[in-house]
Amino acid sequence: MSVTEQEFNRESLDSVLKRRFFFAPAFEIYGGVSGLYDYGPPGCALQANIVDVWRKHFILEEDMLEVDCTMLTPHEVLKTSGHVDKFADWMCRDLKTGEIFRADHLIEEVLEARLKGNKEARGEKIEDVEEEDDQKKKRKKKVKEIKAIKLDDSVVKEYESILAMIDGFSGPQMGEIMTKYNIGNPATGEPLELPKEFNLMFETAIGPSGQLKGYLRPETAQGQFLNFSKLLDFNNEKMPFASASIGKSFRNEISPRAGLLRVREFLMAEIEHFVDPEDKSHSNFDSVKDVKLSFLSKEIQQAGKTDVVETTIGEAVSSGMVDNQTLGYFIARIYLFLVKIGVDPTKLRFRQHMSNEMAHYAQDCWDAELKTSYGWIECVGCADRSAYDLTVHAARTKEKLCVRQALPEPKIVEKFECEIEKKKFGPKFRKDAPKVEEWLNSRTECELEDLAKELKDNLKITAKIPDTSIPEIEIPNDLIKIEKKTRTEHIREFTPNVIEPSFGIGRILYSIFEHSFWTRPEDSARCVLSLPPLVAPTKVLLVPLSNNETLQPVLKHVKDKLKTYQIPFKVDDSSASIGKRYARNDELGTPFGITIDFDSVDDNSVTLRERDSTKQVRGSVEDVVEAIMSITYKGVSWEDGVKHLTPFESKTEDDE
Amino acid sequence: MSVTEQEFNRESLDSVLKRRFFFAPAFEIYGGVSGLYDYGPPGCALQANIVDVWRKHFILEEDMLEVDCTMLTPHEVLKTSGHVDKFADWMCRDLKTGEIFRADHLIEEVLEARLKGNKEARGEKIEDVEEEDDQKKKRKKKVKEIKAIKLDDSVVKEYESILAMIDGFSGPQMGEIMTKYNIGNPATGEPLELPKEFNLMFETAIGPSGQLKGYLRPETAQGQFLNFSKLLDFNNEKMPFASASIGKSFRNEISPRAGLLRVREFLMAEIEHFVDPEDKSHSNFDSVKDVKLSFLSKEIQQAGKTDVVETTIGEAVSSGMVDNQTLGYFIARIYLFLVKIGVDPTKLRFRQHMSNEMAHYAQDCWDAELKTSYGWIECVGCADRSAYDLTVHAARTKEKLCVRQALPEPKIVEKFECEIEKKKFGPKFRKDAPKVEEWLNSRTECELEDLAKELKDNLKITAKIPDTSIPEIEIPNDLIKIEKKTRTEHIREFTPNVIEPSFGIGRILYSIFEHSFWTRPEDSARCVLSLPPLVAPTKVLLVPLSNNETLQPVLKHVKDKLKTYQIPFKVDDSSASIGKRYARNDELGTPFGITIDFDSVDDNSVTLRERDSTKQVRGSVEDVVEAIMSITYKGVSWEDGVKHLTPFESKTEDDE
Repeated sequence: MSVTEQEFNRESLDSVLKRRFFFAPAFEIYGGVSGLYDYGPPGCALQANIVDVWRKHFILEEDMLEVDCTMLTPHEVLKTSGHVDKFADWMCRDLKTGEIFRADHLIEEVLEARLKGNKEARGEKIEDVEEEDDQKKKRKKKVKEIKAIKLDDSVVKEYESILAMIDGFSGPQMGEIMTKYNIGNPATGEPLELPKEFNLMFETAIGPSGQLKGYLRPETAQGQFLNFSKLLDFNNEKMPFASASIGKSFRNEISPRAGLLRVREFLMAEIEHFVDPEDKSHSNFDSVKDVKLSFLSKEIQQAGKTDVVETTIGEAVSSGMVDNQTLGYFIARIYLFLVKIGVDPTKLRFRQHMSNEMAHYAQDCWDAELKTSYGWIECVGCADRSAYDLTVHAARTKEKLCVRQALPEPKIVEKFECEIEKKKFGPKFRKDAPKVEEWLNSRTECELEDLAKELKDNLKITAKIPDTSIPEIEIPNDLIKIEKKTRTEHIREFTPNVIEPSFGIGRILYSIFEHSFWTRPEDSARCVLSLPPLVAPTKVLLVPLSNNETLQPVLKHVKDKLKTYQIPFKVDDSSASIGKRYARNDELGTPFGITIDFDSVDDNSVTLRERDSTKQVRGSVEDVVEAIMSITYKGVSWEDGVKHLTPFESKTEDDE
Repeated sequence: MSVTEQEFNRESLDSVLKRRFFFAPAFEIYGGVSGLYDYGPPGCALQANIVDVWRKHFILEEDMLEVDCTMLTPHEVLKTSGHVDKFADWMCRDLKTGEIFRADHLIEEVLEARLKGNKEARGEKIEDVEEEDDQKKKRKKKVKEIKAIKLDDSVVKEYESILAMIDGFSGPQMGEIMTKYNIGNPATGEPLELPKEFNLMFETAIGPSGQLKGYLRPETAQGQFLNFSKLLDFNNEKMPFASASIGKSFRNEISPRAGLLRVREFLMAEIEHFVDPEDKSHSNFDSVKDVKLSFLSKEIQQAGKTDVVETTIGEAVSSGMVDNQTLGYFIARIYLFLVKIGVDPTKLRFRQHMSNEMAHYAQDCWDAELKTSYGWIECVGCADRSAYDLTVHAARTKEKLCVRQALPEPKIVEKFECEIEKKKFGPKFRKDAPKVEEWLNSRTECELEDLAKELKDNLKITAKIPDTSIPEIEIPNDLIKIEKKTRTEHIREFTPNVIEPSFGIGRILYSIFEHSFWTRPEDSARCVLSLPPLVAPTKVLLVPLSNNETLQPVLKHVKDKLKTYQIPFKVDDSSASIGKRYARNDELGTPFGITIDFDSVDDNSVTLRERDSTKQVRGSVEDVVEAIMSITYKGVSWEDGVKHLTPFESKTEDDE
């Protein structure tokens, strides 16, 4: 296939995607709204097929529990999850023009332009940085012109160090950088307001009173966490298990560019795999252990390098680079999924998050990054969210979100316990009694041990209950007993950890476009999207040689046969030449073409054409449809799929 | 089947739906938010299966163009479509308690309670009104107690007349009724604020400046209209054609009750069929013309009756009751779809909208209504939106949203035309010139005829340009010519009309639950959901008789076979009795069970059980799976599907 041998031409791809209405800016006749896109028929079908493969590859294969939760989410839930406080970017406003910039992007953009200007002034060659961050290319255009100004060596070093750490700065730190290095509006140089935090959730009010504040969910995960107990019950209390959800999420980007790669409304597919924190092995790990992947660990990145390590997932887990089998299992399964739907494996790497860039809930995280003309793009995240979410929701709602398991054999434990003499305790502390009691009951084992000693030594304990207005209290030893007791436990109670593979479908879809796009060497105007048959929007184009009545019965026969197998097809009976009709469908990624000619009427045979090679074979309608079915849905190769059919030499396509 | 013979018990169904996690209130551990629900695994699978059948029945079968448009929609678009001004309900606030009521529901509720009290006072029997509006039953509970107070005959008549016309009152009219009849908070009797208009769209701000006001879409239709030109182009300019979209829409209900029937976030499936306004015939109408349906026309309703007319869609169209073939075609196709997915055809009618209840964009509308314990529920709307939407968006954006068709033969037309002498016209009107010109160019044929006469008689025309500050102007006849001209037209340009079938998936889903729910006569605790195999969440339950190792190979063999055919199944290898395991799955609507016993190991045979009849047959794994496949996906009946298998007498299920 010629895809990887050619230099990729983004303009050419964009023009195909637009011309064939894969997608388009939403509300375009109203001038559009940045970060919002509509999918046209082929884009919509491709998306549906990718989702379908995802559902089979993950949900059906692993018996996951799919749920569909609401997007509208009340404030309280997202306050607890941390999103109200932490799901934010820093923005700077130009008070004169009203323009708003994302602070980190702005600093990158301006410093990179200055570094480029410096090289120009020094007469050095300016290389196109190969591994660019996803949006830099587009953003760079905002800097009006790059001025060839020489910088001191020390300044160059400072700039480079800022750029290397850009994901780790707080808002105030970025403000200091902007002031120190005089970074303003890149178009005018005018100063900007210092960075302010901007929450990226879309806010709305639920109900007519306007008092119930809500947001559009920033991820589908929260709905799954909130239903944890129902899901565990549905799963007959068996652990581990996974829930999954496919649906739209929202992110009010400050100034989205880069097409489908940074949008305000996007389709996500998320899995929440609930696992025992003390046993993160995976029963099916052996089935993937030999899958070879490219890893970019945090150690390598911290050393300032980007050289990937190629090794099997089995090695990666046993060496400790990937923390545990469950995380490793999903990393490998993500790889297998992406390759199946058309991602070029040479443009796929797994990058570990560095600790300063991790989301607020994550404990460890590996991203599947896909290489595109915008740089390496994060398309799938695979995070270990630990017990964070279940713990905070349980604490807030006082609902138990945990697993109770019968211990294989009873366990004898020694524990300090605090016993309260209620009859004396209540009268002494009156209205404060419940708070004092709660404080006593929430002491850790260590604290209880200390208190027991204090009680023994002083015959009383002295304490100040935090977060209350209760003055320092004394509890004499006739009110409480704190003693070590021996108990037999039959049940183990724990909050599961969560491993979360989270897919951005739109980003994956766009990357597949880039990975599968090429133009025919003999004519660069003839573009091809080599989408795998499994996900191609339409599988077969039916091309009757002419509109002559005599061809109709065969056409109908082919259509009926395709319908029986539920293979999506289109008929093109326009008057355009056969070559033109195929060229149109090469751009749509249609993998097969069936030509019906006058010979077909006589012997029920048709010609089958393959999109990438333009090779043709001939056989009966039944055999041809059977071949299409095997290649499309059973993963059979073209060569094997058509070996019973007869090679067919046609005139070259251009003459057709 | 026993479904229709039993009295329906809603409490019993609700308890099954909750116990099996078909759906649950969203954010339940936070106390829930009314009108928001999450679908658990079986509800989610059922929904996905219904959507899948919908996609095949409509989109694939008719080659519709599916699109996926954004939910976030800028203000301007929904201002133009009329939703900002007209998508509203009237609400009344209790200033003391803060409670908010929907005005029409409130009036109904209070007056019905009074009429009931009157009957009680008169000692008349109070019948349960059979055909209740969808939410009355629940709402009635709000009236604290029904007081037995006798009303004058004249008052009874007034109340009844108000109730009959309740859908047609404006907000101020409802205010008058509330004042006149002293209608207040039903729980306390306290007076309420007069009705205020409340827009039902969720509002939000797009982007960080907060200046771009947006809404969550109230329907998926607008995205399809805005992409009309791209879709027409994609369809190679061929007419008629349809687009379709499946996605969430939002409606900020004032006080939603009635479970899945009135929610704030819901899945819709909408078709926009674009058709020539001068030819609304449908090429495939003959294929459905004999489908027999129940119609409730607006004439019958206006006569105060609810007796349906049973007739074929062919008759309904030729008699003019249904306006045209395209509308009729979709009505019949909607019927076929609903019955296929499990709607009871005896609980399905098509009701025509009366003119005072039609949405602001609709010209004619038929609802598919399903009968449930909440009354007759609108589940599918089939509206003729005429050219309304395309016209208003085209006018607002100045983009052409129309079809240009070559005329079969050129047409000679005589038309008045206005010719402007630009050289003199510009200098005379200066900055006003463009507006005067626009005004001249937008005159109708009639107006031009009058102007031509005025110009001839007075040698000038006098005019006031509306909506401008331009003072009255005079245009002398050396600046313009208005004359009748003969032209040959080759192209016809028109704005298509839109026929819109619009499906509320959640309402359909709930109605199917009611239509397919029953309890076994021998034990009312054993509930069954007789979902059609095609849409049932899981198709097969695999029940190994014991966990004995020897059964594992056969179990694996059955699983592999089912996977090959992509038939969704579950294994229940719990220690519960076989009867209990089947009972659990009867509640989940699982149509088939396969029992694997020790005979299976010897001869590869298994027992197949049918959910509704509990009949059992026995055969080889291959034959049993083949039978399941034919019955589930090919519409074969149980009797035909298993006729090659051997009837199997087991002990009764309770003993198992």
